Amino acid sequence: MESDVIFKALDDFAIELPSWGFANTGTRFGKFIQEAAATTTEEKLADAGQVHAFTGCCPTVAMHVKWDFPCDKATAAKYGVAIGSINPNLFEDQIYKHGSLANPDAEVRAAALQHLIDSVEIARRMGSRDLSLWFADGSNFPGTANIRQRRTWFKEGLKAMHARLDPDQRILLEYKPFEPAFYHTDIADWGMSLLLARAAGPQARVLVDTGHHYQAQNIEQIVAWLLSENMLGGFHFNDRRYADDDLTLGSIDPYQVFRIFHEIRHFEWETGTRVDIAYMVDQSHNLKPKIEEMIQTATMAQELFTKAALVDHGKLAHYQSHAVLIDAEECLKNAFATDVRPAIREWRKSKGLAEAPLEAFRASGYLERATRERAERNRFSVSSYA
Amino acid sequence: MESDVIFKALDDFAIELPSWGFANTGTRFGKFIQEAAATTTEEKLADAGQVHAFTGCCPTVAMHVKWDFPCDKATAAKYGVAIGSINPNLFEDQIYKHGSLANPDAEVRAAALQHLIDSVEIARRMGSRDLSLWFADGSNFPGTANIRQRRTWFKEGLKAMHARLDPDQRILLEYKPFEPAFYHTDIADWGMSLLLARAAGPQARVLVDTGHHYQAQNIEQIVAWLLSENMLGGFHFNDRRYADDDLTLGSIDPYQVFRIFHEIRHFEWETGTRVDIAYMVDQSHNLKPKIEEMIQTATMAQELFTKAALVDHGKLAHYQSHAVLIDAEECLKNAFATDVRPAIREWRKSKGLAEAPLEAFRASGYLERATRERAERNRFSVSSYA
Amino acid sequence: MESDVIFKALDDFAIELPSWGFANTGTRFGKFIQEAAATTTEEKLADAGQVHAFTGCCPTVAMHVKWDFPCDKATAAKYGVAIGSINPNLFEDQIYKHGSLANPDAEVRAAALQHLIDSVEIARRMGSRDLSLWFADGSNFPGTANIRQRRTWFKEGLKAMHARLDPDQRILLEYKPFEPAFYHTDIADWGMSLLLARAAGPQARVLVDTGHHYQAQNIEQIVAWLLSENMLGGFHFNDRRYADDDLTLGSIDPYQVFRIFHEIRHFEWETGTRVDIAYMVDQSHNLKPKIEEMIQTATMAQELFTKAALVDHGKLAHYQSHAVLIDAEECLKNAFATDVRPAIREWRKSKGLAEAPLEAFRASGYLERATRERAERNRFSVSSYA
Amino acid sequence: MESDVIFKALDDFAIELPSWGFANTGTRFGKFIQEAAATTTEEKLADAGQVHAFTGCCPTVAMHVKWDFPCDKATAAKYGVAIGSINPNLFEDQIYKHGSLANPDAEVRAAALQHLIDSVEIARRMGSRDLSLWFADGSNFPGTANIRQRRTWFKEGLKAMHARLDPDQRILLEYKPFEPAFYHTDIADWGMSLLLARAAGPQARVLVDTGHHYQAQNIEQIVAWLLSENMLGGFHFNDRRYADDDLTLGSIDPYQVFRIFHEIRHFEWETGTRVDIAYMVDQSHNLKPKIEEMIQTATMAQELFTKAALVDHGKLAHYQSHAVLIDAEECLKNAFATDVRPAIREWRKSKGLAEAPLEAFRASGYLERATRERAERNRFSVSSYA
Repeated sequence: MESDVIFKALDDFAIELPSWGFANTGTRFGKFIQEAAATTTEEKLADAGQVHAFTGCCPTVAMHVKWDFPCDKATAAKYGVAIGSINPNLFEDQIYKHGSLANPDAEVRAAALQHLIDSVEIARRMGSRDLSLWFADGSNFPGTANIRQRRTWFKEGLKAMHARLDPDQRILLEYKPFEPAFYHTDIADWGMSLLLARAAGPQARVLVDTGHHYQAQNIEQIVAWLLSENMLGGFHFNDRRYADDDLTLGSIDPYQVFRIFHEIRHFEWETGTRVDIAYMVDQSHNLKPKIEEMIQTATMAQELFTKAALVDHGKLAHYQSHAVLIDAEECLKNAFATDVRPAIREWRKSKGLAEAPLEAFRASGYLERATRERAERNRFSVSSYA
Repeated sequence: MESDVIFKALDDFAIELPSWGFANTGTRFGKFIQEAAATTTEEKLADAGQVHAFTGCCPTVAMHVKWDFPCDKATAAKYGVAIGSINPNLFEDQIYKHGSLANPDAEVRAAALQHLIDSVEIARRMGSRDLSLWFADGSNFPGTANIRQRRTWFKEGLKAMHARLDPDQRILLEYKPFEPAFYHTDIADWGMSLLLARAAGPQARVLVDTGHHYQAQNIEQIVAWLLSENMLGGFHFNDRRYADDDLTLGSIDPYQVFRIFHEIRHFEWETGTRVDIAYMVDQSHNLKPKIEEMIQTATMAQELFTKAALVDHGKLAHYQSHAVLIDAEECLKNAFATDVRPAIREWRKSKGLAEAPLEAFRASGYLERATRERAERNRFSVSSYA
Repeated sequence: MESDVIFKALDDFAIELPSWGFANTGTRFGKFIQEAAATTTEEKLADAGQVHAFTGCCPTVAMHVKWDFPCDKATAAKYGVAIGSINPNLFEDQIYKHGSLANPDAEVRAAALQHLIDSVEIARRMGSRDLSLWFADGSNFPGTANIRQRRTWFKEGLKAMHARLDPDQRILLEYKPFEPAFYHTDIADWGMSLLLARAAGPQARVLVDTGHHYQAQNIEQIVAWLLSENMLGGFHFNDRRYADDDLTLGSIDPYQVFRIFHEIRHFEWETGTRVDIAYMVDQSHNLKPKIEEMIQTATMAQELFTKAALVDHGKLAHYQSHAVLIDAEECLKNAFATDVRPAIREWRKSKGLAEAPLEAFRASGYLERATRERAERNRFSVSSYA
Repeated sequence: MESDVIFKALDDFAIELPSWGFANTGTRFGKFIQEAAATTTEEKLADAGQVHAFTGCCPTVAMHVKWDFPCDKATAAKYGVAIGSINPNLFEDQIYKHGSLANPDAEVRAAALQHLIDSVEIARRMGSRDLSLWFADGSNFPGTANIRQRRTWFKEGLKAMHARLDPDQRILLEYKPFEPAFYHTDIADWGMSLLLARAAGPQARVLVDTGHHYQAQNIEQIVAWLLSENMLGGFHFNDRRYADDDLTLGSIDPYQVFRIFHEIRHFEWETGTRVDIAYMVDQSHNLKPKIEEMIQTATMAQELFTKAALVDHGKLAHYQSHAVLIDAEECLKNAFATDVRPAIREWRKSKGLAEAPLEAFRASGYLERATRERAERNRFSVSSYA
C-alpha cells in the first residue's frame, strides 16, 4: 500500500528542465568550461532529452528567449521532450543597465514591454502556457531610484503584457531579494510579487525560486499562503547556503524541500483538489557534469516528492487540531525517514526505465560523444572578471 | 533657510513612548533590576511625562492592556502626556501556549477575540485612535500547526474585531519573522500583515517594527510599498544587530532610520500630502537607565527626522529620473552629513525647552527621587531562566 | 554487515542530558508552565533517568551550579544516571549586568573567578571531568565596552581557573554571536573561543553549540578545523531557524547534524583514532512535554549518528581525491537516505530496551505520576515580560 | 583645535586604489560596459592618478598579477602614483576548477605555488611590501572535498611561499565565507585566516574585506581582536547589504566603517603606537562611473576616518571603565554627528587641492577624453551568462 502511494505520486510528478542548465555558466569570477556542454539550442534539447529518457519525469524544457530562439516544437519532439515555459530576458542587454520595465527611460521601458509581448507570441507559437518572468530591476545605492515610481511602471508594464495573453496562458512572476541589484530589487519578495501579479490580471501567478529568499525565511509558509490566496503558479527549484547559489536541489537542506512538497500535498488532501503548479529546475551547474547533475536533481525531486506523499494526512490533521506537537511532527519525520529508493526503482522498472538512471546514462556513451563533438566549440566560451 | 526647514520638521514631529519602556524588562536569561524603574502605571506615565517635558516631542504614551489598566486620561494629563495607542496582550496568559486568534482550540480563540473587543472599548474610553496588535502566534516545529487554517482564523478574528471599531479608530497590525515562535510565525512579514489587514476592513493598516525583519531586508522599500498601497499605519522604532534586539533607535544603523524617514518625506513632497503615520518607540531598556535612554531615543529621532527633511527633493527627483547615480545618492548623503544639532538646540530654546535634554533631566533630581521611592518595590521583580 | 556497523555505532554513542531541560523555561515573553516539569534537582535527575532507561544512550546529566546544587552522586545513581559536566552560572546574578570575567569592576571579576573555582571544586567532588563555560558577557551599544581590555580579562580569568584544574579535568569554552548581549559578545565565534582556550592552558577545549552561529555558517567546517587543531571538546546540540532557538535536535535541518557527525567519523576513519568528544543536549523545551522531547532528541541523535556511520569512507576518500563530485556527494546522500530505524529497533531489543522508547515511556504512567506530584509546585513559576 | 585633529588625521590617512576598479566588471549576469573604462594597465594607472590628483589620499595602486603585468614603476610614476600591493590570481584559470593551493591534484597545487612565488618576485621588482592573497578555493556540495586535508595543503603552500619573502615583505591573507564556492570556502573566516597566517610565518597577517562576513557579524570586534593579536594586516573596503556586493564604501552603513576606524584609533591612543595597516579599496563599479565612484569613495573614507579621529578617547575610556553606558556611547555618536566636511575642504585648500574633488574632476575634461579614446576598445568586452 505504501508502494501504491509512491507509484501514484511518481505517476503524477513531472519537473521541467531549464535549457540553460546544459550550457556553460559560472560566477562573476569566470566560467569553468565543460567540453560536453551544449552550445546550441538543439544540443540543449538533446541533453534534456537524455535526462527525460533516463528518469521519465522531465518531459518539458524551459526556454530562454534570448538564448534559445529561433527554435520549433519539432526539434524538441525529435529528442523526446516538449517546449515548456518561455523565459524572456530583460537583464543582459546594455539598455537594461538601470532596469527594464522600471527603467527611468520611457524608451527602454517600451523596448522591455515589446520583448515581453514578443515572448507571448513565441509562447503561443510553441504551445507554451507559462511565461516565467524574472526581473533584475533594482538599484545599487540608496537614493538612486524612485522605488514607488518604479512599482507603478511595473504595474503598467505587466498589465499591458497580460492584455496580450491568450485565455490559457499565464504569467509566472518571480521575486528575488538581491543580485544583481544590491541595494533594492524592485520585486524583492513574495508580497511584492503577489501584489503586482494581482494588478496585472487574473492569469498572473507568483513563481517561487527556492534560492530567492532571506536567510532563515520559512519558504513552506510562503507556499502555504500562496496556495490559500490561489496565487501559487510554480517553482524554480535549487538549493543554497548563503545567497542565490543555484546548487542541486536538496543538496544542502533536503528536509526543507520535503516540507514544501508536504504543504502542497496537504493542501490537496484537505481541499480534495489537484493543484496546478509548474515544477521547474533552475540551477547553475558550474562544477558538476551538467547532464549528470540534472539526472541527480530529477531523482532527488522524485525521492522528496514521494516522501511527502507518505505523510498520513488524517493523523496529522488530528494531531494539529489537538496541538499534540510531538505526534504531529512525527508524521512528517516518519515520512521523511522512510527509504523510498527501493519503491522508486520498482516504479522505474514498471515503466521500462533503467533502475539506476545515473549509471545507465553513464553507460550509454552519450557524454563521450558529446565531448567529442562539442569540445572544440566550447573552447571559446572563456570569460573574465575584469 | 535650512534652519526653517528644520524648525518646521521639528514642529511636525512627534513620537509616542511605550509605557513598558519604563518598567524592568530583560531577556530570557533574566532581568537586571533598575531601582528607579516604574512599578505602577502612574509611575510609567510620570516617567514618560519627564521625557516629554525635556524633549517636547513625546506627547503620548502607548499603553499595554494587561499591564497598565485600569487607568484614566486624567492620570496621564497630570503628568503632561496623553494616552496613545492601546496594545492588547495575547501572548502572556497560559491559555495562549498554542496561539491566540489562531489557537486550534475554539474557546481560546473566543477568549482572544474578547480581549481584542475589550481593548477596543478601552481605546474608546481613553480616546485612543490606534490599537496596535502584535501576535506571538506561531509554531516551533514543522508539522505541528496548520498554517493555512491559522491564516483563516486570523482573517475571521480580525474581521470580527474590526466590526467593533468606531469610524475613527484603527487597527495597526504588526508582523515579525520569529520569536517567541521559532519555526513559523503566523504573521511573519509585511505581505501577510497587509493581506490580513485588507481582509479585516478599511480601518486596518500595517505596523512596521524596525526590528522585525530578516537580516539584510530593505525596510525602506517596504515603507515605500506600504505608502503606495496606502497601508502604512505606523512604526515601532528600535535598532538591532542580529534579531529583535530592541536597542536604542539609531544606535546600530542610523543611516537606515534616516532612509526610512526620507522615503516618507519624499512621498509627501511628491504627492503634496501629509501622511498620517503613528511613530512609536518600542525598545527594551535592559541596561541603560530607562528615562535617559528614552530621552536619548527621542533626541536621536529628532536628529534623523530633520536630516531627512533636508534632502533636496527637487534635485533628487531630477537625478533619479535621469539615472545620475552619484548625484542622486549625494542628495541623501549631504543631508545625512549635515550636523543638525545646533539648529535643534535653537528650536528647543524657541520652545522654552532645555537645550540639552539629557543634561537637564539629570540635573532635575527626578531620578534620585524615583530611586528612593521605588527601590524597595523593585527588589522583588527578579526572574530566573530555569 | 550494515547492521553490524549500526550496532557498533550505537554501542559507542552516548549523549548527555541537561538538567535544565526538565524544568520550566521560556522566552523573554514568559513561560508556559508544564505541570509535570521538574521542580527540584532530584526530580530533574529522576526525569533524566527515565530518558536513559528508555533510550539507553543518555547515561549522564549536565548540572547547573546555581540551580542544581547541593547535590550528590548517590542521588543521580538512585535514578540510574551519573553526574556529567558542570555548568557554572555567570549570567543571572545582578552583579553581572556588565559582565562577569570581563566586568569593568575588579570585584565582580573576582567574584566570577571565585564562582569558577568553586565550580571546579564541585566538579572534583562529583567526579566530573568537564566544566562547560558559557559567558553572557558583552555589550549592547557601540562604544560602551573596551573589547580588547575585556579580552585580556578573559585570558587572565580563564588562566587562573585552569590553574585549579585536576590533571584529568577540562574546560569546555562556548562561543555565541549574540544574546543576551546584542551589540558584541566577548566570545563571539569559534576563533575567539579557540584563542582563549589556548591561552587558558592545555586542558581547555572549544565547545560547539549548534545554535550559536551566524546564519549560513558552515558548522561542520568549524568542526573539521577544530578536529585538525585538536581543540574540539564537545557539543551542545539543538536546532534553530533564525537565532539561538534551542529547538529539538534535527527538527529543522537533520542533514546538517548528519554532516557534523560525518566529519567526526571521517576523521576517526582517517586517523585510526577514536576522538573524545562530549556530546550534550542543550535545548529549551518551551512547548513540547519535556521528557518526551528528550526521548525524541536522543532517538534522533542515534538515527543521525548511525546514518553517519554508514558512509563508505574508503570510496568517499577516493572520490574526493579525484574530484569526482557527484559520486563523492552520493556517498553522503546514500547513507543519509538509508532508513536506520529497523536496525536501531533490533539493537534496542538486543539490549533489553523497549523498541519504541516514546511509546514505552508513555505507557509507563510516569508522566501522570509526575503531574500529580508536581502540579501544585509548578503553579508559582509564572514569569512576566514587563 | 578640532580642525587640528582633523588636519593631522588627514595628513596621516592614505588608502590604496585597486587597478581592477577602473576596468569593466559586472555580475554573473553580465557587464554593463562603460565607454571610458580602462582597457590597459597604463590606463588604469592613469585613472588612479586622477583620483589621487584630486583627493590627495590615494598614492598607491593595487595590481593584479594576471591582469596588470608586465608593468613597471616608471609607468605608475608617470601618472603620479606608485605600485602598491600585489594580488596573485588563483581563481580564473581552468586548472583551478577544484581549487588552487588546496586542489586535490598535486600538479595544480604546484602551479598555484609557483604563481605565488612568481608574484613575490614581481612584488620585489615593483618594490611592493604587501602580497594580498584571496583564495576562491572551496567546494559546492557536502562530501565533495576533504576540508581537513585542504587545510593542510594550505598550511604547506603558504609556508613555502612565506619562505620566499624578503624580510620586509608581508603576506596579507583574506577570508571569505562564500562565493564563488557555495558550500564551503577553505578560508572562510578570520579565525581560519589567523591560524593559517600564523602557520605560514611571522610576516603573514590577516586581511579584512568588509564585505566578506556573515550577516550581522560584528566586524569592528574582529578588528579589535586582530589588533590585540598583532595580526591585522590591512583592509579591503567596500559596502554591502546582503552578500559580497562590493558597493561604495559607506554607501549602505557608514556608521560601521566609522566604528572600524574608531577601534584602530582607540588602540593607537591606548598603546601610544601608530599601527601599520594597509587601507585598500576593493569595489566593483558596475553602474557608477568608475573614476567618479573612486573619488566618492576616497572622500567618504576621509570623512569617516576624521570623524573617528574626533572621538574623545580619554572621556570614552573613563566612561567604559565605569560602565556609564549612555555617556560612553555619546562619545562615538557626537564624533559621528560632527560635520567634518568644512574642515576637510580647508585641509584640501592648504594642500593645494581642489576643495570639491568630484566637481573638479568633472570640470577637467578627462572623462570625455577617455571616452573618446577608449570607447571603441570597450565595445568588445561584452559577457554572457549562458
